[in-house]
Amino acid sequence: MANGITPRIKDYSQWYLDIVTKAELADYAPVKGCMVIRPNGYELWENVQKNLDSLFKSVGVRNAYFPLLIPESFMRKEAKHVDGFAPECAVVTHGGGKKLEENLYIRPTSETIIWSMYSKWIQSYRELPLVLNQWCNVLRWEMRTRLFLRTSEFLWQEGHTAHASEAEANARAKQMLEIYKTFVEEFMAIPVLAGDKTPAEKFAGANITYSIEGMMQDKKALQLGTSHDLGQNFGKAFDVQFINQSGTREHVWGTSWGVSTRLIGALIMAHSDDQGLVIPPRLATTSLVLIPIWRQTDERSKIIEFTQQIKKSLEKQHKIILDDREQYRPGFKFNEWELKGIPLRIEIGPKDVENKQVIAVRRDNKQKIPIPVNQLIDKIPSLLNEIQHDLLAKARIFQQENTKKIDHYPDLKNLLNQDGGFAMIHWCGSSECEKQMNTETKGTIRCIPWSAESEPGHCPVCQKTSSKRVVYAKAY
Amino acid sequence: MANGITPRIKDYSQWYLDIVTKAELADYAPVKGCMVIRPNGYELWENVQKNLDSLFKSVGVRNAYFPLLIPESFMRKEAKHVDGFAPECAVVTHGGGKKLEENLYIRPTSETIIWSMYSKWIQSYRELPLVLNQWCNVLRWEMRTRLFLRTSEFLWQEGHTAHASEAEANARAKQMLEIYKTFVEEFMAIPVLAGDKTPAEKFAGANITYSIEGMMQDKKALQLGTSHDLGQNFGKAFDVQFINQSGTREHVWGTSWGVSTRLIGALIMAHSDDQGLVIPPRLATTSLVLIPIWRQTDERSKIIEFTQQIKKSLEKQHKIILDDREQYRPGFKFNEWELKGIPLRIEIGPKDVENKQVIAVRRDNKQKIPIPVNQLIDKIPSLLNEIQHDLLAKARIFQQENTKKIDHYPDLKNLLNQDGGFAMIHWCGSSECEKQMNTETKGTIRCIPWSAESEPGHCPVCQKTSSKRVVYAKAY
Repeated sequence: MANGITPRIKDYSQWYLDIVTKAELADYAPVKGCMVIRPNGYELWENVQKNLDSLFKSVGVRNAYFPLLIPESFMRKEAKHVDGFAPECAVVTHGGGKKLEENLYIRPTSETIIWSMYSKWIQSYRELPLVLNQWCNVLRWEMRTRLFLRTSEFLWQEGHTAHASEAEANARAKQMLEIYKTFVEEFMAIPVLAGDKTPAEKFAGANITYSIEGMMQDKKALQLGTSHDLGQNFGKAFDVQFINQSGTREHVWGTSWGVSTRLIGALIMAHSDDQGLVIPPRLATTSLVLIPIWRQTDERSKIIEFTQQIKKSLEKQHKIILDDREQYRPGFKFNEWELKGIPLRIEIGPKDVENKQVIAVRRDNKQKIPIPVNQLIDKIPSLLNEIQHDLLAKARIFQQENTKKIDHYPDLKNLLNQDGGFAMIHWCGSSECEKQMNTETKGTIRCIPWSAESEPGHCPVCQKTSSKRVVYAKAY
Repeated sequence: MANGITPRIKDYSQWYLDIVTKAELADYAPVKGCMVIRPNGYELWENVQKNLDSLFKSVGVRNAYFPLLIPESFMRKEAKHVDGFAPECAVVTHGGGKKLEENLYIRPTSETIIWSMYSKWIQSYRELPLVLNQWCNVLRWEMRTRLFLRTSEFLWQEGHTAHASEAEANARAKQMLEIYKTFVEEFMAIPVLAGDKTPAEKFAGANITYSIEGMMQDKKALQLGTSHDLGQNFGKAFDVQFINQSGTREHVWGTSWGVSTRLIGALIMAHSDDQGLVIPPRLATTSLVLIPIWRQTDERSKIIEFTQQIKKSLEKQHKIILDDREQYRPGFKFNEWELKGIPLRIEIGPKDVENKQVIAVRRDNKQKIPIPVNQLIDKIPSLLNEIQHDLLAKARIFQQENTKKIDHYPDLKNLLNQDGGFAMIHWCGSSECEKQMNTETKGTIRCIPWSAESEPGHCPVCQKTSSKRVVYAKAY
């Protein structure tokens, strides 16, 4: 048990929590269900924010900030929305030493407060589309929590857009899901399936919910992001009307979409191993750690000097840690930086100084690569790219190997109870069959993938015909 | 009344609100005392965050995130702290549909929750110093609010550090105030006085509070940032002990420091004019707006093409808006971009195309500068630097001209009631004299400036001796 981490094979849940706590990514807060995101974990979130925000801005999204507290009456304006969210809200009843006239809800999501402002700001088609996003905290009371994956308070971004037509709103909802897919695959190296949620699984207040679904190392599905086509539901609930180009009044169409600190949980569960965290290079703040290794004290200064020169030559391109602590042995340092997931370790010993080379060790597959010092400037970026590429490829193969076409209900039950993974099944479209499967297999339809090819088949429950397969799995 | 903005001379408060709302920086939220930060305003906050965060990181600060909700019992652990903050808190009494066993406070500031975690994380001098910061929302119930300057909920950063010695903590508190001063002067172009708060004005729970104080255009003071030397107050309240290098146990010393979205209010009040917002170039997302001007339709395509070439040549270095809207006249566009504070406007008319030049118009002083097209790449950055420099210089002169040495109490009363501005007065150090002045002049001692030279004098109230002057003014 290196680094005190429970092996995955022994106890996957404990393995996950060991990584979160021992790599100092997060800790339990004194308030039940809440977490403290520690600097190592927050750094990952900052990198998510920075890169995703720049993708957002490239498609015309602007950031804003809406209030934390929502009047109870606002929550009640969209009937399905309040039914979905009110039971899990935290409620402020007192402020400034007095009982409030109206209770205030801590936002579980901000559709209601934002649409109340849209009703003030939007009069004409000229103000549309309105494409806003906010990075903030939200709170949904949770009884069974797990650090990053499910906590009462979490950090997220929520985009809220208003449009002059149904088609434009729908296109935006799909576009933002594509942005999520791009980000999660290209930066987080997690392959995902994009698709429609079933009506039973959609967001409270949406007409259609789209999601991206990834497979974790325990073969369970994790929903990584959602995007909602809200139709005119909030436009009508908050009476947001605009004068269209023909001069008549219409209600505005809307979307909303979000990803949260749950992504950090996904990052851990998709790539890490029994030695600790594995960070894809494109999300790592520190790309490499340099570890000078000496046996005799008289070797030390020469090796340190050599290492410092290497640091100097690389630090314009990469954030680097030079670990020259004297009180720890190299093996201890290797363990520590493996635990923390730094993509590359560079070992520099007495022989390396002589040979003008170093040994690079990849965090992902432990491969050792000797690199002549004069090739470092080219070799390090290409190695980091290779790691990024290989992590995605490995996760993709894992997902493919654990995705099976299932046609008969007993096989579905077996798959979910034994091997796990994604079952590609036909489904008739009825909520009854869906519910029966949920109850009997503890799985859910994760999504109806956009990539699903047309293929005739039969619902495993009722045997009615179906034209394409859906993804069915146990999920977080 | 250009752009519908009330002139400063007529009604300064209304002028401020007009700019905030008409430049679409912020709006009133449905919950009393809360605000919505609109994209134009949030962009300014993003630029504050980006630049200040990078200054923080250059002095070893790491970001983290601590929970929004604080158990009531935590608030009660530091006696002065709870007295100072409890009356202005919002209180959550219900969650998940049930009455809670213990009330939860929405953080008015996070010392208590953070020090409760520090007691878990800190055992030895090896874990020290611990230098964390969080960017988040906080809430303090306010009855009299003003957008950006004083709202119930606001955004801020709060740094919280733990140290092994009193001297190290004190040095950190001062260092962070210096960082604020650097940021506010170099990026926001607002000159500030850094100094100690009086004991009566310090933070509830601190031993010493340091602040930076700027002068707004109405000659009132605005506190722009504070840094607190907490001594061992929170270390003791949360029993955070560490084993020092000699092997004995001691309580940890602490600091905390913060700036908020109030900075955006300061930015507006320091530089803007009756035409609208003025943004210092180093805080502007968009540096320049290109406005092609044509009279006959047949000139249009040539001018637009010329303008697009200019945009192309500059857009690697600067964020640019090209305003080629056909439905608006140039004058309308000038007004709009002046209102929104874009630092430079570039006018391009038919003659300019012929002469291969453009007319640059500075937002700050309306100066018109013809620039040959082939000099734009060099000239634009130097013009932006000039604007940045001139804004600070102008604000500095204004502050100096409105800062007076006052030695007699009647003169102090006159200054505060008539001209306004900063009075540099002697003060004996007693809270009684301070309180009497507050009551009788409606001013406060803003700070005891670090830059104050030793000079013998007498307290204007009690005539006791004093060795240096303090800054006295009316304040927001």
